[in-house]
Amino acid sequence: MLGPLNVVGDITGCKLENGNVITPKGFKDAWNKLYEAGWKAIGVPQELGGAGAPRSLQVLIEEILSGSNAAFNMYPGLAYGAAEVIEQFGTSDQKKHWAEKMFAGKWGGTMCLTEPHAGTDVGSAKTTASRNPDGSYSIKGTKIFISGGDHDLADNIIHLVLARVDGAPAGTKGLTLFIVPKIRTNADGSLGQTNDVSVGALEHKMGINGSATCVLNFGDNGQCIGWPVGGEEKLNQGMPQMFKLMNAARISVGVQGVAVASSAYLNALEYAKERKQGSSIAHWKDASAPRVAIIEHADVRRMLLHMKALTEGIRALAVKLCHHQDQVHANHGKDEQKASYHQGQVDLLVPLVKAYGSDQGFRVCEMAIQTYGGAGYTRDYPVEQYCRDAKIFSIYEGTNHIQAMDLVGRKLGQAGGANLQAYLGDIAKFVAAHSNHPTFGAAVKKLGAAQEAVAGTAMRLLMWFQSGQTAMVPLSANRFCEMMSELTVAWLLLDGAIVAEEQQKKVAANHPDHAFYAGKVQAALFFARNVLPGVEHKAQLLADEDKTPLDISDAAFATV
Amino acid sequence: MLGPLNVVGDITGCKLENGNVITPKGFKDAWNKLYEAGWKAIGVPQELGGAGAPRSLQVLIEEILSGSNAAFNMYPGLAYGAAEVIEQFGTSDQKKHWAEKMFAGKWGGTMCLTEPHAGTDVGSAKTTASRNPDGSYSIKGTKIFISGGDHDLADNIIHLVLARVDGAPAGTKGLTLFIVPKIRTNADGSLGQTNDVSVGALEHKMGINGSATCVLNFGDNGQCIGWPVGGEEKLNQGMPQMFKLMNAARISVGVQGVAVASSAYLNALEYAKERKQGSSIAHWKDASAPRVAIIEHADVRRMLLHMKALTEGIRALAVKLCHHQDQVHANHGKDEQKASYHQGQVDLLVPLVKAYGSDQGFRVCEMAIQTYGGAGYTRDYPVEQYCRDAKIFSIYEGTNHIQAMDLVGRKLGQAGGANLQAYLGDIAKFVAAHSNHPTFGAAVKKLGAAQEAVAGTAMRLLMWFQSGQTAMVPLSANRFCEMMSELTVAWLLLDGAIVAEEQQKKVAANHPDHAFYAGKVQAALFFARNVLPGVEHKAQLLADEDKTPLDISDAAFATV
Repeated sequence: MLGPLNVVGDITGCKLENGNVITPKGFKDAWNKLYEAGWKAIGVPQELGGAGAPRSLQVLIEEILSGSNAAFNMYPGLAYGAAEVIEQFGTSDQKKHWAEKMFAGKWGGTMCLTEPHAGTDVGSAKTTASRNPDGSYSIKGTKIFISGGDHDLADNIIHLVLARVDGAPAGTKGLTLFIVPKIRTNADGSLGQTNDVSVGALEHKMGINGSATCVLNFGDNGQCIGWPVGGEEKLNQGMPQMFKLMNAARISVGVQGVAVASSAYLNALEYAKERKQGSSIAHWKDASAPRVAIIEHADVRRMLLHMKALTEGIRALAVKLCHHQDQVHANHGKDEQKASYHQGQVDLLVPLVKAYGSDQGFRVCEMAIQTYGGAGYTRDYPVEQYCRDAKIFSIYEGTNHIQAMDLVGRKLGQAGGANLQAYLGDIAKFVAAHSNHPTFGAAVKKLGAAQEAVAGTAMRLLMWFQSGQTAMVPLSANRFCEMMSELTVAWLLLDGAIVAEEQQKKVAANHPDHAFYAGKVQAALFFARNVLPGVEHKAQLLADEDKTPLDISDAAFATV
Repeated sequence: MLGPLNVVGDITGCKLENGNVITPKGFKDAWNKLYEAGWKAIGVPQELGGAGAPRSLQVLIEEILSGSNAAFNMYPGLAYGAAEVIEQFGTSDQKKHWAEKMFAGKWGGTMCLTEPHAGTDVGSAKTTASRNPDGSYSIKGTKIFISGGDHDLADNIIHLVLARVDGAPAGTKGLTLFIVPKIRTNADGSLGQTNDVSVGALEHKMGINGSATCVLNFGDNGQCIGWPVGGEEKLNQGMPQMFKLMNAARISVGVQGVAVASSAYLNALEYAKERKQGSSIAHWKDASAPRVAIIEHADVRRMLLHMKALTEGIRALAVKLCHHQDQVHANHGKDEQKASYHQGQVDLLVPLVKAYGSDQGFRVCEMAIQTYGGAGYTRDYPVEQYCRDAKIFSIYEGTNHIQAMDLVGRKLGQAGGANLQAYLGDIAKFVAAHSNHPTFGAAVKKLGAAQEAVAGTAMRLLMWFQSGQTAMVPLSANRFCEMMSELTVAWLLLDGAIVAEEQQKKVAANHPDHAFYAGKVQAALFFARNVLPGVEHKAQLLADEDKTPLDISDAAFATV
């Protein structure tokens, strides 16, 4: 039922009436059914009423939900993310009081970081928290771009608000994360009076119109209270706590990218099979030749295969990350070295999933529109909405440049570079094992060259750091992030394709799985031949050390 | 006044009331003022009441109009284009009766090609024309996606309709272009009864909402009449006539791309100078360092310079094309060899302007949104609209694949390849002249390598044709079109930069022109170092002869 609501949410949007957000018709019903069916409890620990499924399964369910209705799925997604933070960092009372109901969909949740003057620059947040005699804190400030900041889907909304306690240090180190309910609660969990959180405005956006993006005012009347996540001893721990939520949210955004891309691809594929236009290239000079479905045209096939390879490749990337998360969990307390290896890989892959998933997800939507032609530009087909919806993914939860800086500024050097070395080593092992493969050998050799290009560029980034050419690092970060993403996606596609080719031999040629496996082989080869070589190319561009963006004066950007 | 109407048109859109299209409030007034001020008469021949200005000037005025309001400017743009066709191919009576009023904005105009089953495949059009005893033809059929198909800006609308006269051959060779007025006219040019042209529906689109995209029904009541452009002896000449209009329209679409891109860039530039966020990279570890305008951040500068280089480069490409048009005109009847050289260059460059201008125009809009961050995704700033508006440019007037096929299938081989050789020769001469230039030598050497890559790939395309690997051509056409576009843009940027550097030496360092010239130098170097090397890279990819999109079975595209 989420799919049909996607266009409803887009057209209707959310409304602000008497200070309350009204979500599109049908959303409330969908919310109830989603929780009744248990889809949101798949990943919730069993002790909190969930199924305790591995992340690598949960992520695929999330992809389906976002692919059906990205705007809708933000409400339960944020409730889940906020609950996870309380579950990990909260006191046992907080877990019991807040997290359980949030996991169950009784209450919603948000993350409140951004302020009018502080988006990317979270550390300059001005929202304040003053301690009250009873141990609660009075919160005062304005947060913007708050997804699901208000809605009518749940009885209460639990905001996680970054604020600075009086006297705390400047910057990110002085921020505390507060639990701030929309409606105050009694000790037994029943609802009390409202908590002086008001919706200042609703944003009008390019897409995801079904998702309410709010300006939230906390404590306009001095009556907004909240409690530090984890209690009094966790003051000024807001950023590390928030990073837990942000990491999960960043993965979710990358998954949103592939989810919407996948929906766009599948719609374009269906259209390409049905829409007749032009004749086969074999009869291009014969005006009376029969019209064919556009999937028969080489350029349409190229776009479809590109979309398929990107979609399946980014999905593989996200699942790989989640598999590492599962292995952290499985090895924790048993084999700490192994757990630490997997955690290192999680840390490395998060910016890739977020940035590459969102950038290329948008690209896939663009190709889907192009596959439809003029029809794709109309609202009669869903792809233009997918494209509008997808544009936000490269921006929120940290712009993709922030992801790239996270990768080159923090992740590459983590554990003295050991995480990167392990990652490069995994690929090197794969290359050594398969570079003479009869079908994929040439592609695997390209992978080896790309791996060396990434390794070499990582050294170059380090050299820039060390030699004081610091500005070259942010200038090159996005390109490096893309290189590493393409390397990883190519690796995972080839890895899957080798398995697929083996499996294909085991099924009859007329079995549907036969075509499925063949598709995996072709997608991997397509990516290896058309995208993967770009990694080396980009390494060469970076080696050129172009500094024009740094050299040009501000005045010289003018065009007249 | 067009600029402020841009958002009005987007929000209001067009309405269909009692069969008539109502354009957004203010459009009619803008139309009147535009013609009163004479902006649309700049390029009109003096004998028809215009200024007779060269195309290379007119195109820049068109860019400004489209950059202010792309949706609005489609109405006068199509009126102009249709009038040009009548002026070139019509009988002298037709010129006098129709074209003059269309040039003057008294009447509007459209081009009616696409039908529900025939978009890219124009030749399968089913609209019919039956001769009446009085020499007029009765027109019957449905056309879709007709921009400005109806509106309230002018007293009449003159449709140019492709239809097949009874008994004419199948395909494009049997199509005739008809003049079909919305309202019939008397011999003195006064308006008579309506002409059985009705608006079947109005499309709801991703963008350009101010432009009415109509389904038009001709002759539902058997009362629609029209006349062949050029009279009875021009039957079945519809496609070559329409190509005149399409060529002009294709250039206009490329110009729309750069126009909207330029507006997006200039808005992003202004925002980047004003918006404060984060501290300088020089103080990245100091939380209390002062906040700076985001233009100080390397990644923002990279995006801005990329946008600037693309915008100025595509503008140079469009002006180059128009300069060739002017030279055709100037040399016609004087130096036919020269005229023919210039016409050949016009023909070669049209698909480049259309495809590269539209694809990269969209890319610039995307970067503009990214420069704004979250604010760019909201409707509070114009860039998200520019992005939505710009998406259609890669589709209409022939999708960009059609442009690419026009390039590789028709233009490369035109005049036995002489046009391409002349083009490559022009660049080779430039490379020879400047490859040791102190500032640009290295960039010019890259240009030389890219020129060789384009020449080599053109030979490869020919080889595919000749060796029966025909499907490799459409599979590779878009990539080749992009290669040739990037080569041309790099050439023109470098050509301009060499001049700019010389000019810069002549002005004082504190003179505003000094920065202007410096910007030209930096933009050319940026493009040469970051985009131009991609030409060789793409040539290598094409040399790999990947056939996966052709090899994969339709069934294997499925993902599950």
